[in-house]
Amino acid sequence: MSNSFGQLFRISTFGESHGRGIGVVIDGCPAGVTIDENFIQKELTRRKPGQSKITTQRREDDEFEILSGTFEGKSTGTPIALFIPNTNARSKDYSHIADKYRPSHADFTYDAKYGIRDYRGGGRSSARETAARVAAGAIAKTMLSTLGVEIYAYVSSVGDIHAPAYTELDLSRIEENIIRCPHPDTAERMIERIEEVRKSRDTIGGVVTGVIKNCPPGWGEPVFNKLHAALGHAMLGINAVKGFEYGSGFAGTEMRGSEHNDSFHMDGDRVRTDTNYSGGVQGGISNGEDIYFRVAFKPVATIMKDQESVNSSGEAATISGKGRHDPCVVPRAVPIVEAMAALVLADHYLLNKSSKL
Amino acid sequence: MSNSFGQLFRISTFGESHGRGIGVVIDGCPAGVTIDENFIQKELTRRKPGQSKITTQRREDDEFEILSGTFEGKSTGTPIALFIPNTNARSKDYSHIADKYRPSHADFTYDAKYGIRDYRGGGRSSARETAARVAAGAIAKTMLSTLGVEIYAYVSSVGDIHAPAYTELDLSRIEENIIRCPHPDTAERMIERIEEVRKSRDTIGGVVTGVIKNCPPGWGEPVFNKLHAALGHAMLGINAVKGFEYGSGFAGTEMRGSEHNDSFHMDGDRVRTDTNYSGGVQGGISNGEDIYFRVAFKPVATIMKDQESVNSSGEAATISGKGRHDPCVVPRAVPIVEAMAALVLADHYLLNKSSKL
Amino acid sequence: MSNSFGQLFRISTFGESHGRGIGVVIDGCPAGVTIDENFIQKELTRRKPGQSKITTQRREDDEFEILSGTFEGKSTGTPIALFIPNTNARSKDYSHIADKYRPSHADFTYDAKYGIRDYRGGGRSSARETAARVAAGAIAKTMLSTLGVEIYAYVSSVGDIHAPAYTELDLSRIEENIIRCPHPDTAERMIERIEEVRKSRDTIGGVVTGVIKNCPPGWGEPVFNKLHAALGHAMLGINAVKGFEYGSGFAGTEMRGSEHNDSFHMDGDRVRTDTNYSGGVQGGISNGEDIYFRVAFKPVATIMKDQESVNSSGEAATISGKGRHDPCVVPRAVPIVEAMAALVLADHYLLNKSSKL
Amino acid sequence: MSNSFGQLFRISTFGESHGRGIGVVIDGCPAGVTIDENFIQKELTRRKPGQSKITTQRREDDEFEILSGTFEGKSTGTPIALFIPNTNARSKDYSHIADKYRPSHADFTYDAKYGIRDYRGGGRSSARETAARVAAGAIAKTMLSTLGVEIYAYVSSVGDIHAPAYTELDLSRIEENIIRCPHPDTAERMIERIEEVRKSRDTIGGVVTGVIKNCPPGWGEPVFNKLHAALGHAMLGINAVKGFEYGSGFAGTEMRGSEHNDSFHMDGDRVRTDTNYSGGVQGGISNGEDIYFRVAFKPVATIMKDQESVNSSGEAATISGKGRHDPCVVPRAVPIVEAMAALVLADHYLLNKSSKL
Repeated sequence: MSNSFGQLFRISTFGESHGRGIGVVIDGCPAGVTIDENFIQKELTRRKPGQSKITTQRREDDEFEILSGTFEGKSTGTPIALFIPNTNARSKDYSHIADKYRPSHADFTYDAKYGIRDYRGGGRSSARETAARVAAGAIAKTMLSTLGVEIYAYVSSVGDIHAPAYTELDLSRIEENIIRCPHPDTAERMIERIEEVRKSRDTIGGVVTGVIKNCPPGWGEPVFNKLHAALGHAMLGINAVKGFEYGSGFAGTEMRGSEHNDSFHMDGDRVRTDTNYSGGVQGGISNGEDIYFRVAFKPVATIMKDQESVNSSGEAATISGKGRHDPCVVPRAVPIVEAMAALVLADHYLLNKSSKL
Repeated sequence: MSNSFGQLFRISTFGESHGRGIGVVIDGCPAGVTIDENFIQKELTRRKPGQSKITTQRREDDEFEILSGTFEGKSTGTPIALFIPNTNARSKDYSHIADKYRPSHADFTYDAKYGIRDYRGGGRSSARETAARVAAGAIAKTMLSTLGVEIYAYVSSVGDIHAPAYTELDLSRIEENIIRCPHPDTAERMIERIEEVRKSRDTIGGVVTGVIKNCPPGWGEPVFNKLHAALGHAMLGINAVKGFEYGSGFAGTEMRGSEHNDSFHMDGDRVRTDTNYSGGVQGGISNGEDIYFRVAFKPVATIMKDQESVNSSGEAATISGKGRHDPCVVPRAVPIVEAMAALVLADHYLLNKSSKL
Repeated sequence: MSNSFGQLFRISTFGESHGRGIGVVIDGCPAGVTIDENFIQKELTRRKPGQSKITTQRREDDEFEILSGTFEGKSTGTPIALFIPNTNARSKDYSHIADKYRPSHADFTYDAKYGIRDYRGGGRSSARETAARVAAGAIAKTMLSTLGVEIYAYVSSVGDIHAPAYTELDLSRIEENIIRCPHPDTAERMIERIEEVRKSRDTIGGVVTGVIKNCPPGWGEPVFNKLHAALGHAMLGINAVKGFEYGSGFAGTEMRGSEHNDSFHMDGDRVRTDTNYSGGVQGGISNGEDIYFRVAFKPVATIMKDQESVNSSGEAATISGKGRHDPCVVPRAVPIVEAMAALVLADHYLLNKSSKL
Repeated sequence: MSNSFGQLFRISTFGESHGRGIGVVIDGCPAGVTIDENFIQKELTRRKPGQSKITTQRREDDEFEILSGTFEGKSTGTPIALFIPNTNARSKDYSHIADKYRPSHADFTYDAKYGIRDYRGGGRSSARETAARVAAGAIAKTMLSTLGVEIYAYVSSVGDIHAPAYTELDLSRIEENIIRCPHPDTAERMIERIEEVRKSRDTIGGVVTGVIKNCPPGWGEPVFNKLHAALGHAMLGINAVKGFEYGSGFAGTEMRGSEHNDSFHMDGDRVRTDTNYSGGVQGGISNGEDIYFRVAFKPVATIMKDQESVNSSGEAATISGKGRHDPCVVPRAVPIVEAMAALVLADHYLLNKSSKL
């Protein structure tokens, strides 16, 4: 029971991969936010399957409907419900795994927890649910953009192929290639790697880096809902994520305090730091510098190879590799990371309104 | 405004480093849990300053009082309040930084957010607040132990000195040395490194690894409060933490699906996995295998060297290295990581009671 | 921003009277609850307009769709989304009041709060939103019925016409007449009164009494979410409600302790009370006796007479009585009161699972 | 598990009548609110026992300590913890009822729920817990007073003795007599009645009326946390409360819409209503008029007469009337009603900050 996220800008998602569709209710979007249907659709299209040769060839239109909460193109302060009907749910694809537990999927654990499982395409545990988050995130992004806050994500690694640090990249070029890495040479190598993996009927992991620019100082709610902790919570809730780090991250554990500390200086009347190992967050509160973080995605669990497993009766069972799946999840994860970051920031913008009398 | 953690087993902490003391209220502890004062004190002692030559020489007794919620040695189902008076708060130590922003501390961001700051020892942003978490975590641990769930944490790296994987360690030996690494040779090298860093008036980072054994299948609340996401949220809320990963973590991003997938087999009537790259959690729900994760701690920001900074009037200011601080936070972070893990699991135990009719 | 109700069995409603429709997401319904579509429809039909000569003649079919959360006729533990499309929304009926503030409606206050208002039929403030609560409540009722808990509501007064105390009534006869009062003579007088009021183009208030039978001892969460406080919160959230009392209620304020106290006795091995001025709740926790309460509904604000008011430009404006509205809300409020009571109890059933180790 | 109240201005209370003391943590008080210790003490003194001949003669000093959250007389935005030690807890008074269930008390239900009970003076179910609410409410009142919002409560009835409507009273005179009724003649009769009841070793109920002046339009969070629903939730959570009504309340159920509707007119540039049956709240949102409500208190359950009951072994048992208790709770309930109203409004002030972009 935890299908809601956020305290004041709060989303609740619903729906399964092979039911009627996927949806989201946003409760707490302030009145007066422009609801730009084209932008929401554009964001959904960035996430949808079948968009390029390196994603699953399964095709879904991911067209959405607004069910409530808007009037004459603006939010009204009432709940905004968005619904994305499922149009291409070929349930028969899944009959062969109805009682089998796919390795590194959620089949066994859902059975253990609920005693019942919608086996069609993973049901609720399917990454299709993230379409709802992307739709809601588009509205959060629109709200944040009126405050000047910009949110970016891009693929920073596929397997052992790594892009340079974000400070050396032109973040306006993320959408220029199908892997969503704004470093053309690296992008090309990543794409080649994914094609190679796909041909071997296998899958591979990668990392998505998020960058938030122009976040004002003061956002974040210590001691338990620190800005980076909220971002981490959000990112770790995305399917296939195994890790989160911000600023210096795990590499920072090998540094000395004297090199890691970010000295302050004045930039006009603004307090700035010389370096940014803090990742734009100090004591859990934004300091006005760029917020940046990395999100680790494991290799997709569905592979096109036969695997040994068991079924719900406790018998050995072979899972055959079938269907249409992504060889690497990171290009489609980029808009999801952005959406979750936007939802966190929209929430913290509202929460921060209560910090002073 | 986020000084509470957990939904059903919910803690709220209060207090500053140099006020009257630090406290915690636990709301939602079931009735009938043994409240073992000796065990709570023992856990606090593991966290307290001044415990060894590699921690700060500042001495605090960290003796606690139970203010409410127990009767004849048991919890009553009502809020349990614990209070740890501050006994050694030498406020004068801090007057020299009253209006200066210490690099990589929360001074600037608290000022930016609240417009007011208790500058004495970091006030609310001080790691002293985590004593309250440790006290509450001790009660969660007691409750979990009656369910058979065991919680461990240890220091797995200091700087670039790394211990072997947890599966090669004897977790019963964590308390045998002052660094809390159950691999004696590595422990010795870690201690030497910290002494060397301290002598150079600097600080260094490290990693704490957590391991949870005997967690039953079924704990975790998709899609937003997945068990690992709750753990990540908890760990990222600890002072100085820069990253969290579980199971294969960031290393898993370089693996293929065919090597990363954890095949299932039967072990008697129990479903088990051959490998455990999943880290004991699949689809956000425990699968009965060991849950393990790594928490990255940056080098302590307070160093014994002079640093350039600015003050709240926007003037350049030098921060002089003074006082008594930890050269490396990880040995004292071990009981904090355990406490937060215990709080997450206690909460998820209760949440899971509602999963089936 | 408060379109959710409940902590563990939690509903979130969305939708406006003249948009696409009304919906609800239930998050936290345990897996394995029978989802009886016929029963949900039956409950919606009890609330729908146009059902008798004493309700509005506006006709809406109130047919619902299940969008998610069920599989083979059972809940799966995932969010259950229900949607009720609007089919008979004659927006033109409302153009004459687009910028006028109807007396004792929410027009002015929504404008004051949000700066924007969907004026069509009250938008979100329309009682049509309660259809979503009734649909969700039907599922809560089904769950509770498997636990033996029975929930009743009936009309106990219309204007100054009062039915006898619930202990003198046969609660199985509530649906036998269109006013939903199980005392035939009183029912007849109530219906006559409403017809008379309607003919005079006016409206009238009334009281709905709720009765919960077989609630086990132990439900309720002191000190702030006492069972009766949760019921009161739920009832006061229903449109047009002005008051709530349980047990002896306001009449109890005129009694002496010696007459008001409910003495205990043993009934076999069960602790019972001789009288029940406590209304089945003591210290905020159910004691196993009948829970009963009264909910006050004001006269419907929309009357068929001209009224003086102002518009959003601050000019005097006349509101003309038009459209099709209820002369008295209580007969249609009965299923809403039952639904909210069921939602409160379902939530408290789950919350109580955590009270003991 | 529900010892917290409020969403943004959130209090968590702890403590029992005969333990170490009673306390409260306020999480979410904005930084910069004046913390006036004298005012907090004054409010506690209004609630404390032994203050006059018509309250219990038990004496408690109710002196409080601030444990955290303030610096130089102002709130810092961090949790404010207040503690009121128990000084006069004569536990021996309660040994005679250790295993007996006092009629209309919470003894039986706490045992049923938790399986364990602190029998000393009611433990957590004691009204002593409300001292913590009064202390927190004093801070909320201070914050609201800087916004111009005024909060009053007074005794409007004792038994069948009723004061005139609040609009006919001078609310500045509430503290002029020991019953806290600002109508001197009625006050005198109420006091006589209570004395008479006390002499007959009995108790009596009464009503407290609350009035909020100068609440700006726009506060309240539909559809489930309407301003009046939040007030009702708060009041029904006070010990001994049996009912809540606002505006026309139960009396409004006997009115016609044509008389009950509050017509609008302009008062300068301000929208006002001619009458105020709405009680200052329309559609769950304040409209700028006075908010007024009535809270029903039952007669105190502890009477000085012997009563028949049972004990926890299921045996008949006589409860002897002993100790020092209030013959009527309403004079001491006045500051509690004010405190809870202030906490609701402080929360809604903060919540409303998110209603518009």
